[in-house]
Amino acid sequence: MDTVKAYGAQSSTSELDLLSIDRRDVLGTDVKIDILYCGVCHSDIHTARSEWGPAKYPVVPGHEIIGKVLETGKEVTKFKVGDLVGVGCMVDSCRECTSCKEGLEQYCENGATYTYGSIDKHLGGHTFGGYSESIIVDEAFVLTIPENLDAAKVAPLLCAGITTWSPLRHWNIQRGDKVGVIGLGGLGHMGIKFAHAMGCHVVMITRSASKAADAKALGADEILLSTDPKAMKKHADSFDFLLNTVPVSHDVNPYVNLLKRDKTMVLVGAIEPLPNVHGGGLVRKRKNIAGSLIGGIPETQEMLDFCGEHNVVSDVEMITIQNINEAWDRVVKADVKYRFVIDMKSLKEVS
Amino acid sequence: MDTVKAYGAQSSTSELDLLSIDRRDVLGTDVKIDILYCGVCHSDIHTARSEWGPAKYPVVPGHEIIGKVLETGKEVTKFKVGDLVGVGCMVDSCRECTSCKEGLEQYCENGATYTYGSIDKHLGGHTFGGYSESIIVDEAFVLTIPENLDAAKVAPLLCAGITTWSPLRHWNIQRGDKVGVIGLGGLGHMGIKFAHAMGCHVVMITRSASKAADAKALGADEILLSTDPKAMKKHADSFDFLLNTVPVSHDVNPYVNLLKRDKTMVLVGAIEPLPNVHGGGLVRKRKNIAGSLIGGIPETQEMLDFCGEHNVVSDVEMITIQNINEAWDRVVKADVKYRFVIDMKSLKEVS
Repeated sequence: MDTVKAYGAQSSTSELDLLSIDRRDVLGTDVKIDILYCGVCHSDIHTARSEWGPAKYPVVPGHEIIGKVLETGKEVTKFKVGDLVGVGCMVDSCRECTSCKEGLEQYCENGATYTYGSIDKHLGGHTFGGYSESIIVDEAFVLTIPENLDAAKVAPLLCAGITTWSPLRHWNIQRGDKVGVIGLGGLGHMGIKFAHAMGCHVVMITRSASKAADAKALGADEILLSTDPKAMKKHADSFDFLLNTVPVSHDVNPYVNLLKRDKTMVLVGAIEPLPNVHGGGLVRKRKNIAGSLIGGIPETQEMLDFCGEHNVVSDVEMITIQNINEAWDRVVKADVKYRFVIDMKSLKEVS
Repeated sequence: MDTVKAYGAQSSTSELDLLSIDRRDVLGTDVKIDILYCGVCHSDIHTARSEWGPAKYPVVPGHEIIGKVLETGKEVTKFKVGDLVGVGCMVDSCRECTSCKEGLEQYCENGATYTYGSIDKHLGGHTFGGYSESIIVDEAFVLTIPENLDAAKVAPLLCAGITTWSPLRHWNIQRGDKVGVIGLGGLGHMGIKFAHAMGCHVVMITRSASKAADAKALGADEILLSTDPKAMKKHADSFDFLLNTVPVSHDVNPYVNLLKRDKTMVLVGAIEPLPNVHGGGLVRKRKNIAGSLIGGIPETQEMLDFCGEHNVVSDVEMITIQNINEAWDRVVKADVKYRFVIDMKSLKEVS
């Protein structure tokens, strides 16, 4: 068992600092990964600050992990030392339930093991994430990263990416479909990029006209201002799909009104109560509201392969681990285009 | 043009009384129907009392119409004098849009012509419904009624029936599926009967234990009391489909919690804002909330044929037109098992 350097929270204060954490031995099907980059997700902050219920401290966040294979267990077949690999939001699941067998480990009926804060089946205690020198993960939960991409910019694909990719694929979005992406943040910017790369007619739906130029640069064909009633009326009943990435409670009725008959708006951000969802708005044209949670391992690999082929990566702002507290404050203010990624070399300099 | 006797509202008072209304001439593709029975739907009351926005008076309600063909236009091919026929919520639509071409006239993109209160394309003014001696309807919107069924008990199938049948078919409910029907009224009792006849495991979900015996008699296999937290927990994540017939705003979160991953709760009653729909409840297992509006003409005929084969009819309480005001008051109090049907012979005695 190694002890490794990590950055994390020891209590529910907002400051992260240096920790020493245990890593288990490399077992038969394990891959030990030298972490090169780790994306910063708002979930990291919610968890470390106990905003999603009381956290188990110390919290070492980070579930957008890119690294190189350092060591492999004897039974590992998919990876060899030196491979460029990734780890997302999960490091294990029961692998036996219907959802796991369908490759939808995020919906594991016995509860997936999340990359941080879940029960650690090996060491006891709980799992520690990617704000760390290294991580040991069963190969079944390790992804192959296309070598042609800028690895730092791939990190956010492992949460922000898969969270938007999975619903686009599950709802079978096709070339030519009119797809609306609501909200332009870490998730929204990936939604635009994917829908654009899939050949859709992409409409960025936002409250702020100031986001128009950025959205077009990311691949949006049109901007729809949700504050403009005339424009919203013009687009009524016209969308094949809406990817709603707004991370907080909001009035979804104006968006539902944009859907064609039988089409779906999928929530990927707002995991809280939504006020006054109008039943009549759904009944009128047999519309749907659904939710979607990250994505399974096979579809994450599929997404990464697609990104390799289509040269899709995140727009990122690189930081050092020494800047993490400032970065978190900026995430909370939505002041980042569109994801912070920690260059983990900086952790090696901490003592 | 005929003038016929009808019962209706001349203003937004709650009293219905005798009216004389115009009926157009029988055109080439028209069928003139002698009305034998007309079901009483809560929509009749909402409309006549201007509870769904200002009504166009006089209102002659009634969209669960059973009758005999009195006369046919020269181009009519589907019906002959004496046939037992039905008319539901619609008497016309544009017939050219995508929805109409798919047999989903209720979602007509140019607006279906409803049986009452819609613009009358022939006479100007607006359409008058089935609380009347006769009605003239284009044969495309006239249904064939199986002769083996009790015709009075078929009337409610034309709204309450199709409203519950359509989602069960659209969401492809199969023999053996675990189907929950929420709410036991006009719609709910048909939902139970259909799901039972389709071979589903039917669970009646209700707040009142007093409904258990009735629900079982209608075909429910189990009763789930939504007021019993232990029972609700036991059934969590276990339903293949939920048909939510509750006609008013309510907290849907406890029901969403009952759905399996990827499954849908369909609203057919609550066409108003629902408080605090929890986004996380949808995200957690990719669940769906949808709405559904009555049903199209082809699927209404399919339902009637199914009812003929499986001997499915509504449970009704027969009334005369002279009792309509009292019946309406009882509908408002949900004091009917499960649908009033007017024996329209009684209208002939009014002068």
